[in-house]
Amino acid sequence: MGLFTSDIKTLDDLFVSVLQQIYYAERQIAEQLETMISKASNPELRAGFEQHLSETRNQYDRLQQVFRMHGQEAKEATCPAIDGILKAGNSMAGDIDDKQVLDAGLTHAAQLVEHYEIAQYGTLIAWARELGREDCASVLSQSLAEEKATDQKLTRLAEARLNPQADMQSA
Amino acid sequence: MGLFTSDIKTLDDLFVSVLQQIYYAERQIAEQLETMISKASNPELRAGFEQHLSETRNQYDRLQQVFRMHGQEAKEATCPAIDGILKAGNSMAGDIDDKQVLDAGLTHAAQLVEHYEIAQYGTLIAWARELGREDCASVLSQSLAEEKATDQKLTRLAEARLNPQADMQSA
Repeated sequence: MGLFTSDIKTLDDLFVSVLQQIYYAERQIAEQLETMISKASNPELRAGFEQHLSETRNQYDRLQQVFRMHGQEAKEATCPAIDGILKAGNSMAGDIDDKQVLDAGLTHAAQLVEHYEIAQYGTLIAWARELGREDCASVLSQSLAEEKATDQKLTRLAEARLNPQADMQSA
Repeated sequence: MGLFTSDIKTLDDLFVSVLQQIYYAERQIAEQLETMISKASNPELRAGFEQHLSETRNQYDRLQQVFRMHGQEAKEATCPAIDGILKAGNSMAGDIDDKQVLDAGLTHAAQLVEHYEIAQYGTLIAWARELGREDCASVLSQSLAEEKATDQKLTRLAEARLNPQADMQSA
């Protein structure tokens, strides 16, 4: 049996299915972010996660708006991709005691999530345009811009640790 | 029990663990690409997958080189993130009969994989630099550049479907 509850016959079916996947994913991501906030030590990283949690809630609302615009009931579809990404992040966090190393791992886990979202939103926007739904593309583009900004912020945080004071020597 | 076979104590441990994950992932991705080549209808998409399969094999060899440079045995570590991403792609492909819609789905599945790899290589490069291993960072940067180029090519292919004339011009 496939991932979707019904066969995909048209690009519109595929668009709605991926919309349902990211709708499921955003709720899972919000839950994970709450855990990540509690584990992060670096105040800037924690603040970044807090801001992203607030953005994630807006993105969830935007998805409901897109479902409405597209005449569809807002519905979730399980997505093995985000399940796997979040499982990897959780397992990693459970293996690290050192706070600085844990922060590095959390930053990485968050970037895996961001890139999943960038791929999902990027595709949904292209398909919305192909389906002549510039209105849906426009709403989804706001979320894509936020995801890209968050990813860049996480990259800057990771690079900032190159500061010699924060240098960690391997054992 | 966590994702890793041993606890992560240092950034070096984390670097090696993610290296083992992407080493596992590249082998899984190569297998999946062979299936995707057999399913793709658009000749340009199929050619893109074939080129990426060849790059993936080079990336696998580069990882062995990085393990050697870092004085580590090349070893795989299961990665639930790539497992979930590939499972999502397989399930989607099993649900679509229409060739054009399937091509759209395959393009999307490939972009999810690319973004996973971009996040993994981007992080590994930052950590290699933090650990003073510019030699490892340099080798990994070649793979990151290839992943980004492939993602851009897939985006162009997806956008070209909006304008068949542009599709022919880019072929």
